[in-house]
Amino acid sequence: MPSAFFHHVHSIEPVEVAPGFYSRMLHMGAATLNFITVAAGNTVPMHQHVHTQQSIVLEGRFSMTVEGETQELVPGMVCTIPSQARHGGTALTDCKLLDIFEPMREEYASLGGIRLAE
Amino acid sequence: MPSAFFHHVHSIEPVEVAPGFYSRMLHMGAATLNFITVAAGNTVPMHQHVHTQQSIVLEGRFSMTVEGETQELVPGMVCTIPSQARHGGTALTDCKLLDIFEPMREEYASLGGIRLAE
Repeated sequence: MPSAFFHHVHSIEPVEVAPGFYSRMLHMGAATLNFITVAAGNTVPMHQHVHTQQSIVLEGRFSMTVEGETQELVPGMVCTIPSQARHGGTALTDCKLLDIFEPMREEYASLGGIRLAE
Repeated sequence: MPSAFFHHVHSIEPVEVAPGFYSRMLHMGAATLNFITVAAGNTVPMHQHVHTQQSIVLEGRFSMTVEGETQELVPGMVCTIPSQARHGGTALTDCKLLDIFEPMREEYASLGGIRLAE
């Protein structure tokens, strides 16, 4: 029986939420955790949403732009994106990313991932 | 000038929130991100709180118990702890952990870390 508390990210069915961005998601309480694998060269165009977002590079290098400010994200950095801030970016290498959204991204929860009890 | 959007975790002043657990925290919106470094052998005793918690091992191995279920957490796993679930654990090796709390842990925000605009 699957555990209610412990999850292997690789066992979550991936969803391609943007071209080349494969998301394995956990939806819990007021947040969505989005574990992304993306190959070098893929870009998510500038966009915005009501959710706050915190982005972490677990492996690789990712060029992120927020409100006109661009930085190369590497492990050990956090990018914090306020509600409605315009942002987008490009994978400079193959990357593993973690995006944390609040509140939960309901439109992503309807696409896939696992939804957990609060 | 420090960026409003990009942060180096190592530049955040650590706080020892439990013996041997050194936390570098970002408090944003409805959540706290807690980047922890802990040496092998340190234990956080069983406890509970109203906040939901999601725990990720970035490096190392960490034995986590939630409501009587124990698992060894390694990179690629997520532990999801519902509100008021009893949990605790031990670093089996030197570890880097990321705990995500919702709502923001106000009592931690008063101890340290950086507080960000929503």
